[in-house]
Amino acid sequence: MDPEHGCIDLGGAYVGQKQKRVLKLVKEFGLELYNINEKEKTVLNFRNSWSKFSGVIPPFWNPIKLLDLNHVLRTIDNMAKEIPADAPWKAPKAEEWDAMTMKEFINKICWTSTTKELLRIMIEAVFTVEPWEVSLLYVLWSIGSGGGVEQVVSVEGGAQEMKIIGGTQQLSVKLAEKLGNAVKLSTPVVCIEQTDDNVIVTDLHGNKYKGRFVISAVPQTLLSRITFRPELPPLRQQLIQRIPMGSIIKTNMFYSTAFWREEDMCGTALSDSGPVAACIDDTKPDGSHPSIMGFILADRAREMVSMTAEERKQALCEHYAKAFRSKKFLYPIGYRENNWMAEEYSGGCYTIYTPPGVLTKYGRYLFQPVGKIFFAGTETSTVWSGYIEGAIQAGERAASEVLYEMNLIKKEEVWQEESSFDITSSEPWTIESILPSVTNIFHFVGCIGLSYILYKFYPILLNAIQNWSI
Amino acid sequence: MDPEHGCIDLGGAYVGQKQKRVLKLVKEFGLELYNINEKEKTVLNFRNSWSKFSGVIPPFWNPIKLLDLNHVLRTIDNMAKEIPADAPWKAPKAEEWDAMTMKEFINKICWTSTTKELLRIMIEAVFTVEPWEVSLLYVLWSIGSGGGVEQVVSVEGGAQEMKIIGGTQQLSVKLAEKLGNAVKLSTPVVCIEQTDDNVIVTDLHGNKYKGRFVISAVPQTLLSRITFRPELPPLRQQLIQRIPMGSIIKTNMFYSTAFWREEDMCGTALSDSGPVAACIDDTKPDGSHPSIMGFILADRAREMVSMTAEERKQALCEHYAKAFRSKKFLYPIGYRENNWMAEEYSGGCYTIYTPPGVLTKYGRYLFQPVGKIFFAGTETSTVWSGYIEGAIQAGERAASEVLYEMNLIKKEEVWQEESSFDITSSEPWTIESILPSVTNIFHFVGCIGLSYILYKFYPILLNAIQNWSI
Repeated sequence: MDPEHGCIDLGGAYVGQKQKRVLKLVKEFGLELYNINEKEKTVLNFRNSWSKFSGVIPPFWNPIKLLDLNHVLRTIDNMAKEIPADAPWKAPKAEEWDAMTMKEFINKICWTSTTKELLRIMIEAVFTVEPWEVSLLYVLWSIGSGGGVEQVVSVEGGAQEMKIIGGTQQLSVKLAEKLGNAVKLSTPVVCIEQTDDNVIVTDLHGNKYKGRFVISAVPQTLLSRITFRPELPPLRQQLIQRIPMGSIIKTNMFYSTAFWREEDMCGTALSDSGPVAACIDDTKPDGSHPSIMGFILADRAREMVSMTAEERKQALCEHYAKAFRSKKFLYPIGYRENNWMAEEYSGGCYTIYTPPGVLTKYGRYLFQPVGKIFFAGTETSTVWSGYIEGAIQAGERAASEVLYEMNLIKKEEVWQEESSFDITSSEPWTIESILPSVTNIFHFVGCIGLSYILYKFYPILLNAIQNWSI
Repeated sequence: MDPEHGCIDLGGAYVGQKQKRVLKLVKEFGLELYNINEKEKTVLNFRNSWSKFSGVIPPFWNPIKLLDLNHVLRTIDNMAKEIPADAPWKAPKAEEWDAMTMKEFINKICWTSTTKELLRIMIEAVFTVEPWEVSLLYVLWSIGSGGGVEQVVSVEGGAQEMKIIGGTQQLSVKLAEKLGNAVKLSTPVVCIEQTDDNVIVTDLHGNKYKGRFVISAVPQTLLSRITFRPELPPLRQQLIQRIPMGSIIKTNMFYSTAFWREEDMCGTALSDSGPVAACIDDTKPDGSHPSIMGFILADRAREMVSMTAEERKQALCEHYAKAFRSKKFLYPIGYRENNWMAEEYSGGCYTIYTPPGVLTKYGRYLFQPVGKIFFAGTETSTVWSGYIEGAIQAGERAASEVLYEMNLIKKEEVWQEESSFDITSSEPWTIESILPSVTNIFHFVGCIGLSYILYKFYPILLNAIQNWSI
């Protein structure tokens, strides 16, 4: 709770309609949700052009661009469907897709530079990395776990639809209340020792805790900070060197009114240049604390990390003024940010990613217990991996694994998840879904052209060939 | 020293003629070098064909393959020359080359699948990773730091030319002797705290050590194991999540005689299948302990890690019997191996690598001191990065940085290295270097063809165009 600007979600915040576990928890704790504002239009600030539009698909007048974008997004969904949710390394083309960066795939499949640029923004906003950092297989798996591209990128009907009144951290606070004294804050674990009967955990202050099992829910990158006795198995040791956290500075700019709404803009803007690739209205549901939440993502985050917070504030105001074409953005009444790259016990945000080659060779170890140590954390989830929803599912699964070890539940009750993704991309795309891809169009046009040429020139060509043989 | 098989170099071993620092140290300690055997022929066991040859370039009868390989290796050397040794992120095309995996580059530049496969083996053997794991920029920088492809891959005249009689570890042992009680073994550091005047280092047993400066020479991946107070800067924290160690099991198979030499094979074999992509004779210079040293690399290492040592021994014998076409390899008298992926305080071997996007955005932090902490380690060297030679250079540079901080030397005396690479690839390639690349050949052939077609068909085409306009 900020003294000037109310509660600000500087970490995980958004909740989607399809995220049933987090919705259940919200209800259980008597919390209330509100919809993110998207009544007015979204702004696209792109390749020196500027437009306002409604819905998910930007208003390209050039049909090739529209068809290209449609084709790529549908292809991603279709490819994701081929990936087993609980074992992406078993996908029929796992090796091929994991040996490729997302950039390589984008260059291969996209016809227009506009689509390439839009996909770059999508990867930055969804994964907090650049397309050349991350494996295609990981992107497909992660998008599949969120129910497809449409779900993952959308506000209305998608992953960014709602937030919790009073702040999302209330979920953690209320969970902690239930656990009482068992929760130790500011107590980093430095050693986990497994004996025949127990696990002994040592914290940074030298305190020791004994238990029968351990569930670790930190991002697995951070397991490098812990000394394990016996040491972790070889590929587990190498895994935790290979799953970096994304790069992001999450920001909130506060204004005295939500003036953008009066100018028919909802506060969402996508930009291919400037510090913020994607921003969303973050005004409270009662209209208080008018604000724009902006993500400084991937390369932009790494470039701006050396600035002071004041310099970043200034750069963001100028960016918003340009992106929304309104000078009013130059006059904020407050600014808050969190640089997740500086958080020693997160290491980055939102979650891990896997560079090429890692998911197929090391991915399975993410999920595997090591003796009496079990692993939760959103990156081990098979639904909404990287989201709060995924963290809850992974926690439930890890808890059930331990309950099974304690003979409190049966084998069938562990890991109850569906092993394929529930991707529902086609419905909203009524017009586009019946249109061909650019590739097909070109094939089609090419065939017509070739037929015409053959028809027209056949006699001449025949003549030529006859001359040649003479 | 192994009781049965004498001294075995299970870690860093080879020394090249151009590695002046390690040669100086060898001399200083009164140690002696010997040449690795390469008198007889090298075996190429490749795509179901088998051949013996001398020198570095395999005997391809198909000139396209030879030209293709020549072109690729020359291109790599030429690209490496464009990279500043002490700042690869400043290369003119740094961003482009770092956004590409080595696999992407191989697919782009190679015409023949034979060359692609040979380059895969080269990347595996030199970097202990697969081509799709590593950034092109990193490969170029690292090869450049070793003086070019020829230097890096060769035994005779190259990086694998010599070893130290009695074992390479003598270098560490003799250096440690000079330092006396200052060297603490089995004492992992868990915390480094910087105060205004001092640095306090805590080990795993709780002992504390106070100094004015710290030089860290562990692979920087392992800095994740240490708690820093104040914490490391944001991008330094993210860097150490993004520089994994390579994957390798180093093996030695012992036989009662070096029988392969009698069959005109020196013990070097390159194989595109089976567990060992590259092996070398490791018999002692006096002929004792006849042995083949084999690298189990990258994906093969990760696949074989779950086997027992006995199973690996069996698989290797069968591989050697096939690779060298001699059943005598099935009857070893001993086997030793070291799985570097299981070494908690190495994390892998030979050294770090950077996946795409890391070197340009994080690379500079590898070299930068953090307050009173300075960084050595072979990955921070500008010559022979990844080799013993690089480790010595980096140590000397870090020591000089501290001496400067202590006002014991002048600014000009710090970091004296040349900022461009000394690449000498062209001399040994006398024939190939004057030949064109496959690309050029195709251009040339294509131009002749096109000219002929134009000459022959010009009247007909003209006629056709006139018809068309009517």
